[in-house]
Amino acid sequence: MKWLNEEDIQHIATGAAVLGTGGGGDPYIGKMLALSSIKQYGPVKMITVEELEEDHFVLPVSGMGSPSVLVEKIPSFDQLKAPLEAYEEAVGKKVDVVMPIEIGGVNSLIPVAVAAMKGIPILDGDAMGRAFPEAQMVTFHLDGLKPELVTLGDEKSNVVSIKPADGIWSEKISRQITIVMGGSSIVCDYGISGKQAKESVIPDTLTLAQQIGALLTNERTAKVHPIVQMLEKLNGHKLFKGKAIQIERKIQGGFTRGRATFEGSDENKESTCQLFFQNEHLLAEVNGKPVAITPDLIAVLDEETGMPITTEGLKYGARVVVVAFPAHEKWRTAIGIETAGPKYFKYDYDYVPLETLVKEADQ
Amino acid sequence: MKWLNEEDIQHIATGAAVLGTGGGGDPYIGKMLALSSIKQYGPVKMITVEELEEDHFVLPVSGMGSPSVLVEKIPSFDQLKAPLEAYEEAVGKKVDVVMPIEIGGVNSLIPVAVAAMKGIPILDGDAMGRAFPEAQMVTFHLDGLKPELVTLGDEKSNVVSIKPADGIWSEKISRQITIVMGGSSIVCDYGISGKQAKESVIPDTLTLAQQIGALLTNERTAKVHPIVQMLEKLNGHKLFKGKAIQIERKIQGGFTRGRATFEGSDENKESTCQLFFQNEHLLAEVNGKPVAITPDLIAVLDEETGMPITTEGLKYGARVVVVAFPAHEKWRTAIGIETAGPKYFKYDYDYVPLETLVKEADQ
Repeated sequence: MKWLNEEDIQHIATGAAVLGTGGGGDPYIGKMLALSSIKQYGPVKMITVEELEEDHFVLPVSGMGSPSVLVEKIPSFDQLKAPLEAYEEAVGKKVDVVMPIEIGGVNSLIPVAVAAMKGIPILDGDAMGRAFPEAQMVTFHLDGLKPELVTLGDEKSNVVSIKPADGIWSEKISRQITIVMGGSSIVCDYGISGKQAKESVIPDTLTLAQQIGALLTNERTAKVHPIVQMLEKLNGHKLFKGKAIQIERKIQGGFTRGRATFEGSDENKESTCQLFFQNEHLLAEVNGKPVAITPDLIAVLDEETGMPITTEGLKYGARVVVVAFPAHEKWRTAIGIETAGPKYFKYDYDYVPLETLVKEADQ
Repeated sequence: MKWLNEEDIQHIATGAAVLGTGGGGDPYIGKMLALSSIKQYGPVKMITVEELEEDHFVLPVSGMGSPSVLVEKIPSFDQLKAPLEAYEEAVGKKVDVVMPIEIGGVNSLIPVAVAAMKGIPILDGDAMGRAFPEAQMVTFHLDGLKPELVTLGDEKSNVVSIKPADGIWSEKISRQITIVMGGSSIVCDYGISGKQAKESVIPDTLTLAQQIGALLTNERTAKVHPIVQMLEKLNGHKLFKGKAIQIERKIQGGFTRGRATFEGSDENKESTCQLFFQNEHLLAEVNGKPVAITPDLIAVLDEETGMPITTEGLKYGARVVVVAFPAHEKWRTAIGIETAGPKYFKYDYDYVPLETLVKEADQ
């Protein structure tokens, strides 16, 4: 258990943008929401998965939609808490602990803002161990849990509750509602017991984000470059160094989809790298060959500072290092790959673990 | 109070297709659902608006979406009752009386099927006095009531509850959900007290549909042509006699939209009539001039038998009489015209009452 201070929240915002480069356009929207909510409602306690009681009622809160829209349409406090309150009303009990559904951009800090408002703790853990773009891409789904209830709200005070047939319908229906709500919404789904959370939640991921943020923030005083530190900490691999020469983005089906192309420099001179994204980077190719494939995590870092560059924030001319980290073991199972692997996103590759791809490329 | 028998239901199905020519593609889907539900669950009692008690809880049930889809995707009993049960659960009380939201095609008889299933009466009245294509086009809206709660269900067992910001958002959100549900859904909205129903409901419209159905069914023995009888009964006007020569239809935004063109015969020889529809016929032009404009009711009848031809059922070569009937006085107010008049549907006319247009055409 620890109380989150302003520095922790700053670090989480920074670190979360490495683990989820799509979530929130500007990762600092989440920071702003969390800090202003704490200022208005009081401090937030973060508890570990071990500290959960088995009969706790744990509820994830997150933003859904295109990050490109969220930047323009910042949620109000009322909107942030309405889906949680609709969930409580529908199930007839109070939420004991909120949690992030994913670690990434704004979605690691929206639940901090809600925790402050409701005076309850936030769980140190999430259901992705990173960020993924679709609602069913959660460890709860991998563990066979159904989203029995989903609640959504928007800034116009529309609130919608869904009892979906299954996780795929949950995603389809809530995505359409998010689109009609103007492209972004606040969502609660997978309300679970502390017991279930202990089985399914990927633990300590807010702390991980906070540590990554801390090492990036301290880079000026560090002897080892923060990118190197980060690769060590997360067992990651450097894939490419270069300059962004083309970024194509469109808002489609409630997502920001697109492709970024980089021209190599130094050891990657004469090479080209392409990243394909749907909110999150999902596939990295160098010279037309895959070098990292979803569910493994791909991130774009500023060459100088190591600071993460979101899919929204990436601009022509940016000098970057593209890195990748192995996904949590839950994602490397058959159902994990079926749920969030390349075929699901219609990329014509079989999933090959990052380590294998890197080894092949070295030979 | 009366118990609905099989003949009543046949007549309602037929008559309702005059008052709402879009609702349900084949108006007999409603009949089939009502009759099979009564067979399985028992008879249905119809009560008048006067017989309602002030503290009764009255709930409309209807089908939403494109009639073209409903024909292909007939709802199950479970789907028909799920939105009502979700509504009961959300408000914490049992429904005493169901009612049709509109008189038209399938939507006058879906509530009969649900009434049989739940063993409760159906109200003889509706919230349109005809059929309109959008959810906010109801007398409740004209009387300033908000749809506090909307519930929707589909055949895959998805159930969605909406607390909309207002009637327009109710329509927008439920329309999108209906589209993602595959193009049609079952909906409950505007759950009201008996007291409110007495103020807002247009009374006796199921009986009206039944009487129209009866006179159409008895046409072979009648001395006066059923079209003439119907025009008298509803203060209607014959607009055009001719043959369908072109029908354009597309499923768009969750509606069937299109245009039907007729070439005149007999007294209309050398003339052309065009009907513009969005599920319902909304505008009739003869030789490019408007002769009937929404919210007044436009219907297409078989020249021989007077039987209504739905927007779905209209085929090339059909020999028809186009008729129109004045809307209920609630629709001819400023808010009525704003809600369901020509400008709302983007037709570039001011609303002119049917009687005036007919008088002008005669001069």
